Amino acid sequence: MPARRMSEIPRVDPCADLACNAQLQPQAPGSFELLARHGDARSGRLWTAHGPIDTPCFMPVGTYGAVKGLDPDDLRACGSQIILGNSYHLGHRPGAARVAALGGLHRMMAWDRPILTDSGGFQVFSLRGLQRLDDSGVDYQTHFDGSRHRLTPESVLRTQAALGSDICMILDHCPPGDADAALMRQAVDRSTRWAHRAIELRPAILAPDQLCFGIVQGGTDLRLRRQHLAELAGLPFEGLALGGLSVGEPIPEMHATLAEIAPEMPAERPRYVMGIGTPHDLLAAVRSGVDMFDCVMPSRHARNGQLFTFAGRLNIRQSRFRDDPGPADPGCACRACRSHSRAYLRHLHEQNDPLYGRLATIHNIHFFHQWVGTLRRALRDGRFGEVSARYSDIITEHYLRGPQPSSSRSADGSEASREPNAAEAAAKASDTGAAS
Amino acid sequence: MPARRMSEIPRVDPCADLACNAQLQPQAPGSFELLARHGDARSGRLWTAHGPIDTPCFMPVGTYGAVKGLDPDDLRACGSQIILGNSYHLGHRPGAARVAALGGLHRMMAWDRPILTDSGGFQVFSLRGLQRLDDSGVDYQTHFDGSRHRLTPESVLRTQAALGSDICMILDHCPPGDADAALMRQAVDRSTRWAHRAIELRPAILAPDQLCFGIVQGGTDLRLRRQHLAELAGLPFEGLALGGLSVGEPIPEMHATLAEIAPEMPAERPRYVMGIGTPHDLLAAVRSGVDMFDCVMPSRHARNGQLFTFAGRLNIRQSRFRDDPGPADPGCACRACRSHSRAYLRHLHEQNDPLYGRLATIHNIHFFHQWVGTLRRALRDGRFGEVSARYSDIITEHYLRGPQPSSSRSADGSEASREPNAAEAAAKASDTGAAS
Repeated sequence: MPARRMSEIPRVDPCADLACNAQLQPQAPGSFELLARHGDARSGRLWTAHGPIDTPCFMPVGTYGAVKGLDPDDLRACGSQIILGNSYHLGHRPGAARVAALGGLHRMMAWDRPILTDSGGFQVFSLRGLQRLDDSGVDYQTHFDGSRHRLTPESVLRTQAALGSDICMILDHCPPGDADAALMRQAVDRSTRWAHRAIELRPAILAPDQLCFGIVQGGTDLRLRRQHLAELAGLPFEGLALGGLSVGEPIPEMHATLAEIAPEMPAERPRYVMGIGTPHDLLAAVRSGVDMFDCVMPSRHARNGQLFTFAGRLNIRQSRFRDDPGPADPGCACRACRSHSRAYLRHLHEQNDPLYGRLATIHNIHFFHQWVGTLRRALRDGRFGEVSARYSDIITEHYLRGPQPSSSRSADGSEASREPNAAEAAAKASDTGAAS
Repeated sequence: MPARRMSEIPRVDPCADLACNAQLQPQAPGSFELLARHGDARSGRLWTAHGPIDTPCFMPVGTYGAVKGLDPDDLRACGSQIILGNSYHLGHRPGAARVAALGGLHRMMAWDRPILTDSGGFQVFSLRGLQRLDDSGVDYQTHFDGSRHRLTPESVLRTQAALGSDICMILDHCPPGDADAALMRQAVDRSTRWAHRAIELRPAILAPDQLCFGIVQGGTDLRLRRQHLAELAGLPFEGLALGGLSVGEPIPEMHATLAEIAPEMPAERPRYVMGIGTPHDLLAAVRSGVDMFDCVMPSRHARNGQLFTFAGRLNIRQSRFRDDPGPADPGCACRACRSHSRAYLRHLHEQNDPLYGRLATIHNIHFFHQWVGTLRRALRDGRFGEVSARYSDIITEHYLRGPQPSSSRSADGSEASREPNAAEAAAKASDTGAAS
């Protein structure tokens, strides 16, 4: 790790510039203000029923109604402005009606900031051999107990209405990363029909202050992506997402797709890339004009002993940290780094103490917010060119390593989300499964 | 659960009267002020190098340098004024020299209030068939890796000196709960010799501000207890503990021993009963004039789904809590009860989310502090007779249930401490092992 570089990095407090901490006049849910631009990159502010989101924005994943081991205070202290839930998981455990009876997902979690929920489509399409698709929806067997259920453009909105999500994702057809051209085209056509259906149904199902985002498919086929984007851009979604990325394609192809497609997405609405990514992916996506990201990487890696730092990833299980009195990432202001040594974190990991998982997850999520916050601040301060260039080689050096990606598609696990790519797959391969 | 009774219980904020939150003039470590009495019961304040302890005081167990899953802020918010560590465990993992190199146990954990460490004797004597005893110490094989080590009156002080404990326990000979009279007597004689040795060695090993407590053995044989107490009371320990209780003997015998022996312990020094106990045990011990307690019960039970309430114990795994929007214990002001429903806690437990363990442990430790705080406040307010009588039947009804105790002696587990008794053993028998 080139220690000399660490001192070059001025840290941004990820909580410092968040609009939710300021006394701003609330705007109508769905309002999206663009505050700064640099090339394709931009910074803005999206308003929801539970307050604003400053973009570019990283969203931690709380599949089942909790970002594993963290409570709302932890998340706020990390700088989280919005978190993700998954309606596939929550719809089955504890059940959407149950969440609604408990006052909705916000009340149940005691989280008063925005929540985005995925439709569950990605998860259902990743259940190998368990789905049957037709024009109006998809039948599937759950990975919980094998029971049979059906997702439709309507059912996923109903679930998200019950959860009380601030941002609801529509049902799309997510083909596997290695699908042939015919299936890709079929998926795009079906997704377009389902998107029209969602727009038609939405007024009757969602509350007026629940936002609804469309999802653009088409893999790395730029023509198909452009066609699908054109079809969805004409519909009154409050935002558009790119799905079907980071599902096993080579990183350069993913970044090329982002660089081509993201700038063509409607500029006046927020742009979300689902399931990415590494710190390096986030830089590429921000440069391409993407506003929102989610990834399980910081939380899952934390539990497996991987800590993100501005000098690269650190495996806390290594014996060299046994006597290391320094913080995980010198200069980091998260709770773990402020109070504890690498040696203590390693000791807690060795003892399987759940405090390890919490501190490590806090650190990694703080790191992601700090990294995206650094880019956001630079955009707003008019220094994005300088800052992104300065960090680009550090981030590339430290976070674009490891083998080229194999398929990392899988979503029937306990913390499912759209999956990240190469670095994630590499890290997974080295998992010992020691942390749960 | 007799719900009508819950409203009768005025809750005490366990943090409200703690001297560590007040701007008191610090006293010399070892100073013990008696502030109130009622019969044998009393309330006082013990000063250590890391501040005061208000007694009666419950001490959560952090065997390995963490109260599982909780950080120092959690503990402070629960009302913890002092926590326990175990020098057997810490001496092996991560090692006393390593802890010392990291600045001591307080620095390593980022805990700035008092720490008491057990000597490890209890753990070593509970390693079945692995010890060999002689007059100057005990050889043992660890449960970690089978490596051979030796504990002596000197080595346990050295370990605790390295850890930087505020209160150090001496090495004693802890016979099994079913030991015969001859072994009991032998253990008492040996423990007395070791106590003299500890007093002799102490000035050269411990820092002047580290307190040192003697441990009185003798099982439930009152003559032997009295003999040992007399031998130890003459030595200049800052406090005395009762060991060898709650090791499998019937509860009434344990309470009878407490009632006879505790009031005869030197009144001007703090009295500590090791490894108890249930809320009912704590009431009995406070009535008998005991000042300090420790037990793994609140944290271990929490992980197994058992939540303590003023209306009895609640098993959060039961399906009847699936839709329960109320807090674990109505009226409780802990973080879990303030923000979350039983239904959410149950959901987190079902999902094996580590947030469950943290919230449940916080709740149970808060409950123990609240219960002991209620008794402490009553003593200081001159209402102990009334308050203890009012709660006595509630506590007895709800917390003196379950089968009579079998031996619950065991300490080679991951969260070892002197073990609690009947209710604990009963709860253990019903563990599913689902929570880790």
